[in-house]
Formats: sequence, structure tokens, C-alpha cells
Amino acid sequence: METIKIKEEFLNQAVMLSRGAEVLPGGIEELAIKLQKSKEENKPLRIKLGMDPSRPDLHLGHTVVLRKIKQFQDFGHKIILIVGGATAMIGDPSGKSDTRPSLTKEQVDSNAKTYFEQISKVIDVNKAEICNNADWLYNLTFPDMLKLASKITVAQLMTRDDFAKRYAENKPIAVHEFFYPLMQAYDSVVIDADIELGGTDQRFNTLLGREIQSAYGKKYPQMVMLLPLLEGTDGIVKMSKSFPEHCISLTDSPKDMYGKLMSISDGLIVKYFALLTDISNEELNSIEEKLKTENPRDLKMKLAFTITEMYCGRTAAKEAEENFVKVVQNKEIPDDIPEIKITEDITLIDFISNFDKSLSRSDIKRLAASGALKINSEKQTNPAYLITNSMIPVIVQYGKRKYIKGV
Amino acid sequence: METIKIKEEFLNQAVMLSRGAEVLPGGIEELAIKLQKSKEENKPLRIKLGMDPSRPDLHLGHTVVLRKIKQFQDFGHKIILIVGGATAMIGDPSGKSDTRPSLTKEQVDSNAKTYFEQISKVIDVNKAEICNNADWLYNLTFPDMLKLASKITVAQLMTRDDFAKRYAENKPIAVHEFFYPLMQAYDSVVIDADIELGGTDQRFNTLLGREIQSAYGKKYPQMVMLLPLLEGTDGIVKMSKSFPEHCISLTDSPKDMYGKLMSISDGLIVKYFALLTDISNEELNSIEEKLKTENPRDLKMKLAFTITEMYCGRTAAKEAEENFVKVVQNKEIPDDIPEIKITEDITLIDFISNFDKSLSRSDIKRLAASGALKINSEKQTNPAYLITNSMIPVIVQYGKRKYIKGV
Repeated sequence: METIKIKEEFLNQAVMLSRGAEVLPGGIEELAIKLQKSKEENKPLRIKLGMDPSRPDLHLGHTVVLRKIKQFQDFGHKIILIVGGATAMIGDPSGKSDTRPSLTKEQVDSNAKTYFEQISKVIDVNKAEICNNADWLYNLTFPDMLKLASKITVAQLMTRDDFAKRYAENKPIAVHEFFYPLMQAYDSVVIDADIELGGTDQRFNTLLGREIQSAYGKKYPQMVMLLPLLEGTDGIVKMSKSFPEHCISLTDSPKDMYGKLMSISDGLIVKYFALLTDISNEELNSIEEKLKTENPRDLKMKLAFTITEMYCGRTAAKEAEENFVKVVQNKEIPDDIPEIKITEDITLIDFISNFDKSLSRSDIKRLAASGALKINSEKQTNPAYLITNSMIPVIVQYGKRKYIKGV
Repeated sequence: METIKIKEEFLNQAVMLSRGAEVLPGGIEELAIKLQKSKEENKPLRIKLGMDPSRPDLHLGHTVVLRKIKQFQDFGHKIILIVGGATAMIGDPSGKSDTRPSLTKEQVDSNAKTYFEQISKVIDVNKAEICNNADWLYNLTFPDMLKLASKITVAQLMTRDDFAKRYAENKPIAVHEFFYPLMQAYDSVVIDADIELGGTDQRFNTLLGREIQSAYGKKYPQMVMLLPLLEGTDGIVKMSKSFPEHCISLTDSPKDMYGKLMSISDGLIVKYFALLTDISNEELNSIEEKLKTENPRDLKMKLAFTITEMYCGRTAAKEAEENFVKVVQNKEIPDDIPEIKITEDITLIDFISNFDKSLSRSDIKRLAASGALKINSEKQTNPAYLITNSMIPVIVQYGKRKYIKGV
């Protein structure tokens, strides 16, 4: 690290930017130096964020990094959003993995469009540079590829957790898999990144970006900021579309967003405030204090309102709050339940499934098994339970906040 | 292996072709089936041999494989000679190795020309297909490369001896090194090889060629024939230009070739006959028998004459034999020693070095240390020994068969 007098202003910025993040290498001070130099040389920092176009739907977990990116943007730095088109279009050439389907250029473009629409709720997409790494990776020649591969050793790649684990367990690692981190690292060379942001699961890949930049001659290679992975509302596993009950999408209705936020475990309140809202460090401390004495429900309502307002606006957040108080806290059934005509006997699972296409039949069976299906407020664990004409009008509840009326 | 009736003719061919070779997988029988099918379908087999254009000078060690190739050619099969231009032109992109300098296209072409001139002493180059793998490897796109790399796992590559050893010893293996065997293997796909020949040190690479062909959908992937590495005249290490005293080049003078062959250790006689000459298996057995009772010198003279005749013609071989008998066996100094005028005092090393540019000063020092320098038939171990005018005429001998007369 260089000996340089760091100005208060940039140290403060660095502290703010580092909230919740791990800053590598060198931590806050080195970040402050980078910020100061950028200002002195009138050269905005180039902040890199990669996106996976095979999964375009955003949830609150994604916003942790995006909000950090936004902070850099607010300080006048340049955001570079990289659509990982090369990887997505190649898919898994070994054909072994279902999780890496190969996408056409059209699918990538369409997914990227959806993605950018959603992230524009967090950052100013118009001020960002947007690029697709297929544009440069597809133009790499054979000698280019070998040159890239020559910059890293097998042993170094083997230190990546998943490679190390699979190798130790004698599970196959195809050689092309080595190229995924290398491609991502090479992106940093091409876009000349000064800082790369990512989740803590991107530690290896982002630091490799720094190393490959050095190998290609960049004097001040990128720093890395790693943000924690946000747990889903259950507080147990990483928020993910694979667990829709615990996942809060940016496209959720205000009512759902508010309701899901109210369902988080108390232990998540401070973390959600810290990573998902703009409250100051002082407020954050005061919330931590209050949690020791006050009812966490009130703080959760503040959290739910704040976040719902951010993505859906004040009016919708207000309505969602009122609905929540009425339905959940006062156990009332809401007024605006959709009504479905029952013309013949129908199983509970068919009734729900016909109405709500977002749930698969196995989702509904899981809800039944976990006691989350109710008929006229009584639990019903058998999804094949028959709803007959004689029961009309009947109110079916599934999950915490969803109702259908059979008429 | 298929159940197929193998005809005597092809079994005999297979036996002949397999002399001295390891045939993988399936051995002689599978080779016989391949030969028979080729005949039945009137489709000559495609026999692959790769060459390293960074080392264009051929010695007898190289002819072991080339002679085998020639046998296939004589049976009507197609020889495909691949100049490894891609590798040679890339060199070592990590820049760490002195042994993999990168060559220009011109150097590759010029080396290939020298190489083909020399191998035309063994095979009919005009009937062979000659190609340069730069022509296809340089055209590989990024997805092509990933596809190729996806066909093999890290663990498989790690079974290659040198990789395994270096990994175990914590010595770095750069990722691009994985591509060298893959490139060679991919060559087999492109040229659609049925059989690849190589030295036993090429076991991994050639078998990888077979595997990659399968992965790319070839129904009957290539068989592999591995030929032993020929020891140099000392019978200890592999014949190589790095040990010129024990290396017999195809461009050696008939006298040198004959003389060096006479210097081989007795244990090599049968192996040299088997791998370097056309004698029948019956003759070979008879030589083995004779070695038990007769003076090996006579058999060595037969060997030396046979091989010298092959590469230099009958007359030159005859002269070389006569010279050998005169100089070495009868310890006479030959008649035709080059004469050098000595105008002022000169050290022994300068005297030899000025005359014979093929030897470096350290070569000469090594000869001195090993007692191979003589002045007027007396050993002189000091290379700085001063030859003065008063000694004229003086005969300097270096190595076993080289003389200069100072006059």
C-alpha cells in the first residue's frame, strides 16, 4: 500500500460504501485511496458487475449488491454491467448439466431486457455502461485463449472451494469448467475494472479477475467488494427462486412483498435493514437497541413498509400495511378475495392449481403437508380433499395470505 | 472386440507391423481386423504421425517410428504427417520455458522442409498427406475450444506422468499446458486417423487422441502403436542431439555413421537390428544365437554396414568400413587428414575450435576431461595446452575418429 494522506471526505465515503461488505485487499483505507485518486485525476472509477442472463428474475437478495453499485453511481463513478452472454450461449458443452442450458442470442437479449427493467428500480441504467462479454470472448483466437490459460496454474484453480471438494471426492471436473472463472476474470481486463462487486460466493472469481488484470499488465488491478448472501425469509438458506415461499421478488405484489417481509425471523431484522434500506448507521444502532426491549413486530412493520415503499411506492405500501393489519394481525379475511364458480365437485389441489398458475402441483402438495392449506379456516392436509357443491360458498386459504372463494 | 474371422494374410501383416511395438488397445488381433476391414472396404487406413517442427534434425532414434510408418505405406495405407505448427508458433505463452521458443511461420516452414528432406530417406513423402495443425487449430472459435476442453476431466489429465509428478511436488502447471495434449488429440479428429504412431513417451497423448475421437462421435477410434525409444550408442540414455557423441544423425558422414554404430554397446546389437533394419525375424533369431558364441564385432560390422548402406549407399558404406578397419581396428592414422597451417602459437582448444565449428568450447573441454584429446597419439587433458611452431607437423586427434594435422 502506498503512503498517502487520505482526506476525511474519502475515508467517510469508503466507510459508507463498505457497510456490510468485505473489501479486498487492503480494506477501507485502500478503498479510500482509490476514491481519492479517482477524484484527483478526475477519472471516475469503473465499477464492474456481472449478471447471469439465464436467471433474469430479481429478488431482494440481488439488490444487496445492486444498492452498493448505486452508491458508487451516486458518488459519480461509472457502472459497467456485463451480461454474461458468452457463458449463457455456450451453456454446458459437456451436456451433463441441466442447470446450464444454452440460450440463443435472442433469449439472452430478452432476458437482459427483463433484467435491466428490474434493476432500473435500483440503479440508473441509463448512466451505466452495458455490455455483453460474448462480444469479446467470441473473438478470442486460439493463441489468445492459450495466453489467458497460461496466466494461472492448475493448483490455483484447485483452491476454489467447489473444485477442491469435487476433486477430493473423485467427482469429475471437465477441463472447460476451468474457463468459466477465467472468462469472468478476463472481462475485468477488457472493461478495465477498478472495483468488482459480487456475493461472498464470488470471492475466488473476483480475486482471479484482479490477478489476471495484473498478469495482463494493469498497474492498479481491481479491488473486490464482497457482499453477504441474503437469507430468505426463513433465515436459513440463501434467498432463491427455488424456495418461492421464502423469496421476495421485485415483481411481487405490494401485498405479498409486505407480507413476506413481516414473516422474516426476528434474527434477520437488523441484517435486512442494513443491507436493503438506506437508513443511517445511527438509526441501525438504535434499531439494534430497541430490539432488546421492544416488540420486534413494530420494527418489522417499519422494515416491511420501508422496502415495499422503495419498490412499489408510498400508496401501495400503505395499502399493503393496512391489509396486513386487517388480515393477519386481526385474523380477518380480506374483502377482495377472487371468486371462482364451482360447477362440479373438485379436489382441493385442482381448485388451487386451476386458479393460481404460479404454483406447481408439488408446491401445493408441500403446502398441504406443512399445514398451509385451509378450508373455511380449518387446516386440510389432504390435497385430494373433495370440494362439493353443497359446501358453497367456501373459502380456501393457501399459504399465509392467499385466498380463493368458491361460489 | 468383434467376432470376426481373421484371414491369415492380415494376421501375418499385423505380426510384421507389430515387431517391437506395443499395440493398443486389443493388440495384434484387433490390428489384423482393422487391416482386413480396410482391404474389404477398399479404404486404406489413415496412419498419423506428428512432428515437432522446432527440432527438425533427424537421428536414427526417429527412424524407428518412421520405418514403421513406411511398412504401413508399403501395405498401401495412407500416411498423414502433421507438422505441429500451432504449438510451435505459440511457443510457451507463459514465457517461462526456454525449451519452447515460439517460431515464426517461416521458421516452421523451413524446418518442415528440412524435416521432409530427411524423412524422404525413409518414407515416400510424395505419397503422404502433409498438413500443419495451425490450419485448423488457429480457426477454432471460443465455443469450439470449450467443447474440446469439455471432453476430458482434470483428473484424467492429471494421470499423465509429468502432470502427476509436478502436481505432487507442488510445481506449477499452467492451465494452457492442458491444451497441448488436447490439441494433439484433436488433430486425430480432424485428420480422421485410424492408427497413430509414436514413441512410448506418447502413450498418454495418443490414447487421448483415441478418446477424443470417440467423444466427437468416431465409431472406430484410432488404435495406437507405441515404439520403444532408442538408446544412444552408450546404451544408457535416449538418443538425442543433446548428447552428440552418442547420437547418429541421418546427415552424419558415412564414416561417422559407421564409426558410431561400431561404438555401440554389445547389448544394443539385437535391438538396433530389430528396430533399424529390415532383416527378417528368422535372421534376428540367428543373430541372437550367434551373439552367444561369436565375436560381437563381426555382427556390429554387419549392422554398421547395413545401416550406413541404407542412408548413404553401398559405395560410401564400403569406404566407411574400410576406413574403420584401417583407423580403428588397425589403429592407423588415416591418409586423408585435413591440414591446417599454424602461423603462431595456438592453444589446443582454439586449434580444434577454429577448425570444427560443430563443437562448442565446452564440448572440447568435455572431450579433454574425458581423455579424448590426443597430440601425436598422446593424451592431453589440458585444453589450454599450447601448440607451438616447433611442434610442426603435429597430429591432433579429438574424439574417436577425428584428426587435424597442423602444418
